[in-house]
Amino acid sequence: MNIEGRGSTTIVRRETEYKPPRSWRTWLIGRPLPTADAPHQTIGKFIGLAVFASDALSSTAYATQEMLVILAVLGTMAYGYVFPLSLAIVILLAIVTLSYEQTIHAYPNGGGAYIVSRENLGVWPARVAGAALLTDYILTAAVSVSSGVAQIVSAYPVLFPWRVWISVGFILFIMVINLRGVKESGATFAIPIYYFIVIMYLTVGVGLFRYLTGTLGVVQNPPPIEVLHLGEGFSIFLLLRAFASGTAALTGVEAISNGIPAFKEPRSHNAGVTLIIMSTILGSLLLGISFLSAHIQAVPSEVETVISQLARTIYGERGLLYFATITATTVILILAANTSFADFPRLSAFMAKDSLMPRQMTFRGSRLVYSRGIVTLAVLASVLIIVFNASVTRLIPLYAIGVFLSFTLSQAGMAHRWWKVGHLKPGEEIQERSSTLRYDPAWRIKMFINAFGALCTGVVMIIFAVTKFADGAWIVVLVIPALVAMFTAIETHYRHVAQRLSLEHYGAPPRIARHRVILPISGVHRGTLAALRYARTLSDDITAVHVSIDPEEAEKVRRKWEVWGDGVRLVVLDSPYRLYIEPLLEYIDEVHRQRQPNEVITVVVPEFVSHHWWSGLLHARAAVTLRAALLFHKDLVITSVPYQID
Amino acid sequence: MNIEGRGSTTIVRRETEYKPPRSWRTWLIGRPLPTADAPHQTIGKFIGLAVFASDALSSTAYATQEMLVILAVLGTMAYGYVFPLSLAIVILLAIVTLSYEQTIHAYPNGGGAYIVSRENLGVWPARVAGAALLTDYILTAAVSVSSGVAQIVSAYPVLFPWRVWISVGFILFIMVINLRGVKESGATFAIPIYYFIVIMYLTVGVGLFRYLTGTLGVVQNPPPIEVLHLGEGFSIFLLLRAFASGTAALTGVEAISNGIPAFKEPRSHNAGVTLIIMSTILGSLLLGISFLSAHIQAVPSEVETVISQLARTIYGERGLLYFATITATTVILILAANTSFADFPRLSAFMAKDSLMPRQMTFRGSRLVYSRGIVTLAVLASVLIIVFNASVTRLIPLYAIGVFLSFTLSQAGMAHRWWKVGHLKPGEEIQERSSTLRYDPAWRIKMFINAFGALCTGVVMIIFAVTKFADGAWIVVLVIPALVAMFTAIETHYRHVAQRLSLEHYGAPPRIARHRVILPISGVHRGTLAALRYARTLSDDITAVHVSIDPEEAEKVRRKWEVWGDGVRLVVLDSPYRLYIEPLLEYIDEVHRQRQPNEVITVVVPEFVSHHWWSGLLHARAAVTLRAALLFHKDLVITSVPYQID
Repeated sequence: MNIEGRGSTTIVRRETEYKPPRSWRTWLIGRPLPTADAPHQTIGKFIGLAVFASDALSSTAYATQEMLVILAVLGTMAYGYVFPLSLAIVILLAIVTLSYEQTIHAYPNGGGAYIVSRENLGVWPARVAGAALLTDYILTAAVSVSSGVAQIVSAYPVLFPWRVWISVGFILFIMVINLRGVKESGATFAIPIYYFIVIMYLTVGVGLFRYLTGTLGVVQNPPPIEVLHLGEGFSIFLLLRAFASGTAALTGVEAISNGIPAFKEPRSHNAGVTLIIMSTILGSLLLGISFLSAHIQAVPSEVETVISQLARTIYGERGLLYFATITATTVILILAANTSFADFPRLSAFMAKDSLMPRQMTFRGSRLVYSRGIVTLAVLASVLIIVFNASVTRLIPLYAIGVFLSFTLSQAGMAHRWWKVGHLKPGEEIQERSSTLRYDPAWRIKMFINAFGALCTGVVMIIFAVTKFADGAWIVVLVIPALVAMFTAIETHYRHVAQRLSLEHYGAPPRIARHRVILPISGVHRGTLAALRYARTLSDDITAVHVSIDPEEAEKVRRKWEVWGDGVRLVVLDSPYRLYIEPLLEYIDEVHRQRQPNEVITVVVPEFVSHHWWSGLLHARAAVTLRAALLFHKDLVITSVPYQID
Repeated sequence: MNIEGRGSTTIVRRETEYKPPRSWRTWLIGRPLPTADAPHQTIGKFIGLAVFASDALSSTAYATQEMLVILAVLGTMAYGYVFPLSLAIVILLAIVTLSYEQTIHAYPNGGGAYIVSRENLGVWPARVAGAALLTDYILTAAVSVSSGVAQIVSAYPVLFPWRVWISVGFILFIMVINLRGVKESGATFAIPIYYFIVIMYLTVGVGLFRYLTGTLGVVQNPPPIEVLHLGEGFSIFLLLRAFASGTAALTGVEAISNGIPAFKEPRSHNAGVTLIIMSTILGSLLLGISFLSAHIQAVPSEVETVISQLARTIYGERGLLYFATITATTVILILAANTSFADFPRLSAFMAKDSLMPRQMTFRGSRLVYSRGIVTLAVLASVLIIVFNASVTRLIPLYAIGVFLSFTLSQAGMAHRWWKVGHLKPGEEIQERSSTLRYDPAWRIKMFINAFGALCTGVVMIIFAVTKFADGAWIVVLVIPALVAMFTAIETHYRHVAQRLSLEHYGAPPRIARHRVILPISGVHRGTLAALRYARTLSDDITAVHVSIDPEEAEKVRRKWEVWGDGVRLVVLDSPYRLYIEPLLEYIDEVHRQRQPNEVITVVVPEFVSHHWWSGLLHARAAVTLRAALLFHKDLVITSVPYQID
């Protein structure tokens, strides 16, 4: 103990630090970590790529297939469009990567779309960006896991009926890994992700070699085809729709910019390099897979994925390398959801600090992770998977709008930032909340890069929303404003609470002069007497109240009270309509209305408690009901005095 | 006000009687009735038949069909067995009726199996009887409504996919009718029940006339046949199984004996006459329907009921009289559930008075009915209907075991009662709890009637349990002991509570000598100060406690407390593992362990409240968690001081 006396107040600081005991939680998520351990939990480029790249890289597994689903109405003509569309997507990827690399250096403490919008565009664009990102993280988890399970089902069709529950099981698995903490999850995921990169380059390499040597051929025994928008012919709209499906490949590129603080110093450098490596791998794999899929005439299907068809055509059989490809793809897809589990809780906590989300999101659990955000994400993603039956094709139209909206806002914000930078004097510095503005002679070209990026992604977002509206994009178009409204309501509430609780210009009220106690009793027994004994310590002005439903019972209570009531006044309320709470409330209300200034009323409710969980069902719980009904009465307090019957 | 001073205690009786205001409940279930209105709610024979006979009579609609489902494996041979089996069931009905008529006169205040067993066989048989009856009431509601909806679906096959939800809708409808009160429900149901009786006698009469004149013929376009236990041949076991299915016709015969207090005086006479009328109608209709069904070679089917086939064969077309028959059958079946809604709540309340069910079952709602029992029954019956997909054939094996078990116990109890009566001296009277024993010279024959009844129903119960075990009877064989265990646990709990609360040999503890207050604070604001102001009225020994997760925040709290803390001691608990509740609990625990005799500790928790329902999600609810965690600490009270922020 460390006691300091300051003025009239004694302040005691206790050095005994509460450490949670070992329990099933320890076994599941590891021993608790003290707050002082926090700074050690950072990661380098190698683990960083594993933690943040799985989302981006894994989209190579479904982007080509989802383009083919749209183009399928064109028959074999479709294969002519896949590679050019992929090329357009890779160009867009390059623009976005360049743009985000600038963001990472400008915001070393984390430069997600939310922060960049908040600093440069204002409150409302920031809320929109936050809503867009949160929506997208949930969808990333749902889409990635669903697609991963689709790969498993391609190899083992017998599992098809269980795909929804397998998907939910994987979500819960990733949740537990993440509840253990980010560093351990990085280590857990590094091996499968590097395995995926090696295997995919091998598959694409062997495929290109066989193509060049003319031995590749087309898919044998293709699965039944899946076609969306049957009966349409070729149109620019169809191409745009296919392009929009393909842009799902870009989701996840922003992940690193949100997660910069997780990197080792020099953070920005490490994060930036990781981003460029990631985009290079993503772009090259997408081009390779699209080129080869078109060449082998892969068929989009619910039963077998394009990756599965590609692997068995390239390797010529369902052998060891086929299974290696499927395994690697499955694992990376399932782990892609991990990107969301790294970023959703972080962004939620960040927005909660800005009072836009419930404060509880800022609490870090025993393993120093934002446990509530992790669990929230797992629940929401599981619901999506169940509702959409784990179908990637049904989820895709909801996806990517959020990402492109946040891309656009983030890059527009960056462009505005360069404009501010350009108007500084050389050598001048302005410290903003999350970054430092310094004059940069290259501000014009940097502003151009970000503004061009914003323009491109903005156009893509509009294309996406228009071409996919009827397929499900409308849901996101409704959800994002709803989330913005929710953020605003939460912010208003917290601001209102802070104002109402503020001690500025607050004159402390005088001490309470009078204390009345009301003691509702249903009978006279040890529990009642314990409550009476307690009430005695509060005040001498006590009134016991009995609601009489049965006159005989009331007479019994009266006679017993005369013996045991210690001289305390008893009021009997007749209740001919057999109601208990209502007459009591009416009486308390009346006493409350007649109170004097500086008078407080306490209702002392006897309550007996038992160790049996079900015993609560066997007794009327008056205290709970009274508390709820009288919550809004000023200067009125409900106290239940527990009497242990075990 | 009426103030009496007796000794040192003032007792006030308030004459203002709380009357609940009008609300949607008034519209739905009618204006509230005061307790004084209770005795007027009794019924005569005419309404009594309507209220209590629907269950028994309605079983004519499915008993024949369920026998045919079993016999169907025998092909057309089946039709030879239906009438003889029905005759056996009617003989059994006659025995049970005679037996129960004696019960009604012996127990004018209600002589259900539960009471008769309790008075004559002891506590355990009474609990078994109670469990059996409650199970059966739930099944009656589920089976009757399902069968009623099957009739509707026979006439309008387009409704087949909605049969489960239509059934649940009817359950809720009957629930509302019963929440309005028994007399009104009698009046509501009298018309359809007498309509059913007239129509069914007309149908059977026309059928017999056409049979005698040789113009009846067989069913045209019979529906697809439904066969249980495919591949079996003729065996005594098969006949017994069909007989067991048919005994479902007897369910409901006991209803009147449970409900005698609902009858006008002379109760026993009115109830007895009603029972005999009811059994006569039931027996004659069952024989008629079975005879004609066999003759027209009706086919058991999920798609069209036997009643529907019978009506269209007798009337020659789907005309007005066909629809009248279907309508009458449907309505009486749906209303048959009403018998359960009259008896289940009454028996629950009765058992609750014996401490076997939660006390809340004895509360009468604003319309003087046992509302909680009514709602409980509606919920359980709906669950059964949903689980068993509203299929009568799947529900039947669960049915009737409970009824025959209660028949057996009730009649065995009566037999024992006559034995006691036979050993009285002429003129001697013994007043038992629910009946008066008087010497009766005919005691031997009366004992024989009841004992023979018990033997017959006991044998039928065993036949039922054995032949239907695998089809679902095992569920009931498990549920009844589970219910008995539940009753016993509840009874033990209430007895234990009563003992622990009893004031016999109780020396009142001395007054509390010392009162310590602990005031957990997360910050210093108006809410905290309101709680401090309240704490001041409780004691001068106050300790404010702050759990420090963030040292900066703790420093801020300390500085503010020096200004606003009114000299009260502040303890800061360091929590390096970021836990809030646990260190606080540990501290409170420690203070609690160190308390002196006659010391009480109050934890005053500041809590702010808002009118927005969702605001609770935005703040940590410390008071709720603390209360749950500290419930079992003696002499420790948790008080939350609400601070209204709106």
